[in-house]
Amino acid sequence: MEEDLIRSLAATTQSKIVLVVFDGLGGLPKTPGEGTELQTARTPNLDALAAQSVCGLADPISMGVTPGSGPAHMGLFGYDPLKYEIGRGILSALGVDFDLKASDVAARINFAQIDAEGNVIDRRAGRIPTEKNRQLCELLSQIHLEGVEIFLRPEKDHRAAIILRGEGLSGHLSDTDPQKLGVPPKPVKPLSEEARRTADIVSQFVIRAQQILSHEEKANMILLRGFDKFEAIPTYSDRYQLKAAAIATYPMYRGISRLLGMTVLPTGDTIAHEFETLAQFYQQYDFFFLHIKKTDSMGEDGNFEGKVKIIEEGDSCFPVLLNLKPDVIAVTADHSTPAVLKAHSWHPNPVLLYSKFCRPDQVKTFSETECIHGGLGRFPALHLMPLMLANALKLEKYGA
Amino acid sequence: MEEDLIRSLAATTQSKIVLVVFDGLGGLPKTPGEGTELQTARTPNLDALAAQSVCGLADPISMGVTPGSGPAHMGLFGYDPLKYEIGRGILSALGVDFDLKASDVAARINFAQIDAEGNVIDRRAGRIPTEKNRQLCELLSQIHLEGVEIFLRPEKDHRAAIILRGEGLSGHLSDTDPQKLGVPPKPVKPLSEEARRTADIVSQFVIRAQQILSHEEKANMILLRGFDKFEAIPTYSDRYQLKAAAIATYPMYRGISRLLGMTVLPTGDTIAHEFETLAQFYQQYDFFFLHIKKTDSMGEDGNFEGKVKIIEEGDSCFPVLLNLKPDVIAVTADHSTPAVLKAHSWHPNPVLLYSKFCRPDQVKTFSETECIHGGLGRFPALHLMPLMLANALKLEKYGA
Repeated sequence: MEEDLIRSLAATTQSKIVLVVFDGLGGLPKTPGEGTELQTARTPNLDALAAQSVCGLADPISMGVTPGSGPAHMGLFGYDPLKYEIGRGILSALGVDFDLKASDVAARINFAQIDAEGNVIDRRAGRIPTEKNRQLCELLSQIHLEGVEIFLRPEKDHRAAIILRGEGLSGHLSDTDPQKLGVPPKPVKPLSEEARRTADIVSQFVIRAQQILSHEEKANMILLRGFDKFEAIPTYSDRYQLKAAAIATYPMYRGISRLLGMTVLPTGDTIAHEFETLAQFYQQYDFFFLHIKKTDSMGEDGNFEGKVKIIEEGDSCFPVLLNLKPDVIAVTADHSTPAVLKAHSWHPNPVLLYSKFCRPDQVKTFSETECIHGGLGRFPALHLMPLMLANALKLEKYGA
Repeated sequence: MEEDLIRSLAATTQSKIVLVVFDGLGGLPKTPGEGTELQTARTPNLDALAAQSVCGLADPISMGVTPGSGPAHMGLFGYDPLKYEIGRGILSALGVDFDLKASDVAARINFAQIDAEGNVIDRRAGRIPTEKNRQLCELLSQIHLEGVEIFLRPEKDHRAAIILRGEGLSGHLSDTDPQKLGVPPKPVKPLSEEARRTADIVSQFVIRAQQILSHEEKANMILLRGFDKFEAIPTYSDRYQLKAAAIATYPMYRGISRLLGMTVLPTGDTIAHEFETLAQFYQQYDFFFLHIKKTDSMGEDGNFEGKVKIIEEGDSCFPVLLNLKPDVIAVTADHSTPAVLKAHSWHPNPVLLYSKFCRPDQVKTFSETECIHGGLGRFPALHLMPLMLANALKLEKYGA
């Protein structure tokens, strides 16, 4: 409903929007009474920007719900994460930078080891090296089955992705991974009538794969799970009339951006590289998504000080962005990853929204605690996209 | 949608949650510029807890809506009060501690007086003593009708509850209470086709009751209203994987808890007794609902000072709870009952949510005014359950 409303109001203008996402930015104090990672970090650029911005706290999905990165980013991009679910198979394909088309079916592969009786004895094939994984994927790419194109892409260690492309495929398939040892892999089963043919195709693929892998010492079998069909999603251009670009060092974030019709820009490995990329392509797009990954990685590792350092590194790059003078700048996170929890969490994300027209509040520094008092209040992250568009004067009036 | 989401994420863990509800806690100043009941009360324990907690203001139903205790508690328990409506007949049965089963039909009874022409001359039968009420309920319990079990339970004065149990009963019945004097009781009418048989049963019951009561001086008739069928509700165990217990001195709150599958613990008459019960049963459950009634009663009576005293009495019991070191403590109300209004009101409830992972805010005392600045912001009370579960690390991540 609201989605249709925003779509009907979106208009093309010359203004530019930059959304910077520090993945897992929100945190918790290490010791009660002390500061969070963001409060501990020295962030003169973000603080100065916050003082000119309207701030707030955004819930990624709904209060109390801890999101994965997929649904959390969908929310940030203005797509209801409960409506636009992205399954594990799709995320896996995105994670290897695969260019998914509508109606592709994707799943995760584990290379695994079975014994002479066909029972699984290692679900990870001794975590074979990624290079070995790459070679095996090439071998399996030789399998040709009628009516379907099959793509294999290595991930890390024993993990890979498989993508099926063709007419009338279905993702309603059961896993073959038995999730335990000492039993054979399960046969793939259709979970609905229209999935019968796809199940047959996958069964044939597994048989052929087992033959090809039979000489391998460890990785002599494959286990498949998380089948999903990718249903096309309305793009940024459809919904917001935006020509959007994404800058991200990790494949999954590039993948989600690509699904939404953003152009994925080539960039380097560091945060500084990402900001340089922004400057380089600044004239060619009117919306930029710039993703900083390592705040989350440090949080997951429980590395409080490491996360503080990444936040400071990100802050130090902001002059490059500020010099471009975008009409709208938003800085936030997809979810919190407090180092003390070593995991994603349910806590709301600090949000800073700058524009010439943003009606500033009394927040003077960018932190979880300060943002409580911001003019945006506490709100669902889903509303950030309309707010950015409005501040860029890209939304027309509703009604007369 | 969100209900299904939380259900799909709920997991069993060792952590424990205690929810303390001061019924009708929120208030208003007696004189402009002075404090509310909660601000006036000396609450050192709640204030110290608030300083370590995240606070906020919760709207029971939606902004501006004054709830009854039934829907307000459903919201607190995470059940959308507009979806899970509990009708008056059901509340009446709960109010006499009756153990309702799914598909039972319940209604309220008023003992009333009719004249020789059959016209109602007193809808309350002169407020007969409760003891008389009890005797009459026993008399009427002798009525046996085919295909249905009938239970009668006295409430206070002239009020009682009737419960019908059997196959294929319906609650779609009109009231027999004409709501005015000088006219006869109305015949009960089926409001839908499938209610025809139940209407016949109730009609027969009324005729037999009138015969039995014909010798009574005052209570020579019954008036029925608020027919409801109790449709089973997903329980706390179904929805949250919680083993939950309720501690409440008033039957209605015990009744609602029982509907949701909580074990109702035996307790005494005072707030101190309730906290002792909590300590006594602490090892056996992982969720406790502790209900303090008299804050509301005092508010309804317009007794500002009395309400202040009850709040202070509740606060003084908190060391018993704190010594148990629950993982999550929430303190709030179902609704406000400002003494100056002598009634429930629409004002939001102060909320305090403590856990080791609650990202504290700058709120240092527990009051309506301080909670405005809390990190939870202003939010629908329906979100409190997910927040408690999240803080107890009882919700898994949504998506990857």
